[in-house]
Amino acid sequence: MLKSDQSVSTGRRKRPTTMTKGEQTRRRIVAAAAPIFNQHGFEGSSMTELMAAAGLQKGGIYRHFASKEELAAAAFDYTWKSAWETRMQHVDQAASHIDKIKQLIANFVEQRGPVVGGCPVLNTAIESDDGNPLLRERVVKALRSWSSRLQAMVKDAVKAGEARPDVDPKDVATLIISILEGALMMSRLERNSDALRRVHQHLSRYIDSDVVAR
Amino acid sequence: MLKSDQSVSTGRRKRPTTMTKGEQTRRRIVAAAAPIFNQHGFEGSSMTELMAAAGLQKGGIYRHFASKEELAAAAFDYTWKSAWETRMQHVDQAASHIDKIKQLIANFVEQRGPVVGGCPVLNTAIESDDGNPLLRERVVKALRSWSSRLQAMVKDAVKAGEARPDVDPKDVATLIISILEGALMMSRLERNSDALRRVHQHLSRYIDSDVVAR
Repeated sequence: MLKSDQSVSTGRRKRPTTMTKGEQTRRRIVAAAAPIFNQHGFEGSSMTELMAAAGLQKGGIYRHFASKEELAAAAFDYTWKSAWETRMQHVDQAASHIDKIKQLIANFVEQRGPVVGGCPVLNTAIESDDGNPLLRERVVKALRSWSSRLQAMVKDAVKAGEARPDVDPKDVATLIISILEGALMMSRLERNSDALRRVHQHLSRYIDSDVVAR
Repeated sequence: MLKSDQSVSTGRRKRPTTMTKGEQTRRRIVAAAAPIFNQHGFEGSSMTELMAAAGLQKGGIYRHFASKEELAAAAFDYTWKSAWETRMQHVDQAASHIDKIKQLIANFVEQRGPVVGGCPVLNTAIESDDGNPLLRERVVKALRSWSSRLQAMVKDAVKAGEARPDVDPKDVATLIISILEGALMMSRLERNSDALRRVHQHLSRYIDSDVVAR
């Protein structure tokens, strides 16, 4: 007779990831499409380019995605996830809540995500703010999750007595995101890190003087 | 005999603007194309849309512009000029150099230029940073002229004793531009003015505490 704890144990046993061939192909198409969409935008990415990158015919792509919009949305999610992982590197190991915020800012300034073309939120926001509702919905969600995460860090810092109790978490989050995204736009256009470097200094001073508890 | 001052006077006499029919048509095409490119980008603007807006056949447009790129570049210049005029409203009438900077910031936050679709520098930077050299060149020039103008205002404020002598004009200009452009991206995506309003407060405090001479 099978003992109940044995059956539970069996149920919980880690199985090798069993991705179907279809899932693997879908994932490969998304990974190939991500840098194309992130560099050239939805309109600037041709099906010919996407097909060449994925090594598939049009039919092969449309077997996995109902439309170019659906592929672009999946590619956005992929690029955003990889950018977010890069920005969060070493954040959880930081010594304090304030240091977590500073680490996230430093990552944005110094690290580039694995998908070329810059920040997917910025790129996709600019292209979808006047149209493309499916993409717009994804980028709004990504921007809000970024802001929420920063706001939560500020709230944690307030609770721990590290940040001033009168600090407005949404003010801090909005300021950090807008400065970093704006400076990234300038740096990418000028093809140097001058703008990102300058605003990094400003943000560090701002956090020390206006956010950190005295 | 014609007296020299008479001839000079004749030469300087204001004549009614004599725009040829060709120049008028060219200008009309640019004005019609500007909001389309500013909203949908270079890739997202189809010749069909541009033709319909201008009320011309493809041949009618190509009689005035060698390529879609050339039309987009002219449209960018037109949109940037009109955005810049909006941002400079009342700036020259401000009481002090610091007030000029604050007026420019307030205009960016509160006024929208006559060409819909947001800031042409931000829109065009994002699309051209990974390609399209003709457009990229225009937007780099526009961004630099904006930064130079802000830096000149800061230098004037230092000279007049209104700003701290140790303030770095390029730091101030970079910070103002990146914050405003980043917040505009957020506000346009969220379809409300929350981000622009929040960073406006931050910039006002920053100028009063870090730029203004004590």
